Amino acid sequence: MNADQARLLRDLVRTQTIAALGTLHAGEPFVSMVPYALQAGGADFFVHVSRLATHTRDMLASARVSLLIIAPGGDSPQSRARVTVQGDAHPLANGSAEYAAAKACYIARFPQSADIFDFADFSIFRIAPKTLRVVGGFAQAFSLGAESFARVLGED
Amino acid sequence: MNADQARLLRDLVRTQTIAALGTLHAGEPFVSMVPYALQAGGADFFVHVSRLATHTRDMLASARVSLLIIAPGGDSPQSRARVTVQGDAHPLANGSAEYAAAKACYIARFPQSADIFDFADFSIFRIAPKTLRVVGGFAQAFSLGAESFARVLGED
Repeated sequence: MNADQARLLRDLVRTQTIAALGTLHAGEPFVSMVPYALQAGGADFFVHVSRLATHTRDMLASARVSLLIIAPGGDSPQSRARVTVQGDAHPLANGSAEYAAAKACYIARFPQSADIFDFADFSIFRIAPKTLRVVGGFAQAFSLGAESFARVLGED
Repeated sequence: MNADQARLLRDLVRTQTIAALGTLHAGEPFVSMVPYALQAGGADFFVHVSRLATHTRDMLASARVSLLIIAPGGDSPQSRARVTVQGDAHPLANGSAEYAAAKACYIARFPQSADIFDFADFSIFRIAPKTLRVVGGFAQAFSLGAESFARVLGED
């Protein structure tokens, strides 16, 4: 991963607001849309989900998830930068310091979501990346691990 | 599903060009980006993928896949229309009539992809929907099966 690739990845996860979340649903993949916020000063992703939603029940049953984040459209679909993040999802305990920090990140990213935090059936899950696969365009791809990703985010 | 919901779904799958494809990878969900074309006069999705890609090996090992298609951005992430399609993916035999028809659909949707069909390591997979979950915006969701989806697409 060179400096341009690191910048591409950093910009991608910082500028986008939604991901395609893959969960394991009765043994099958299930993909749904989630808004996400990046951890301040860290490399975790936070999602705020309803306990009534399929993906939430899936994450509680099996923590292994996949997040796909795609840059806005270019000339052709294959030219779009994107990253697949494989990671583990865990709910944060409401009332914990970690929950408060994640909630602050999330509301900073999505001010209009503040009202939803009053709903008792919503919870925050932390998705901790393990491996990432970045595609910068046609036939331009590289992989990295959690430590490299944290370093990329810390570079500026 | 009322007429407005049917129109929303039809417009969504017809106007968009990329999906987030969820495959089962060593027992875990894995989400990657794929361009897709809709079957002409039918309700299947066609993707054109490299045999070297992770998602292709995954689909050959386990046919159950999930496709998420999201409408372009609105005011807030949660207001974006999207559909999750649960279905089965199978490769089409190069040289078959089904392959030729799918290739024609795909090139009609992505004229710039014609060159890639000369690459020996690419193949077309047909993804046949089984169930669909549509979210039209915040707290507006409905589900449908394959027959209803085919009827929606045939309505105009």
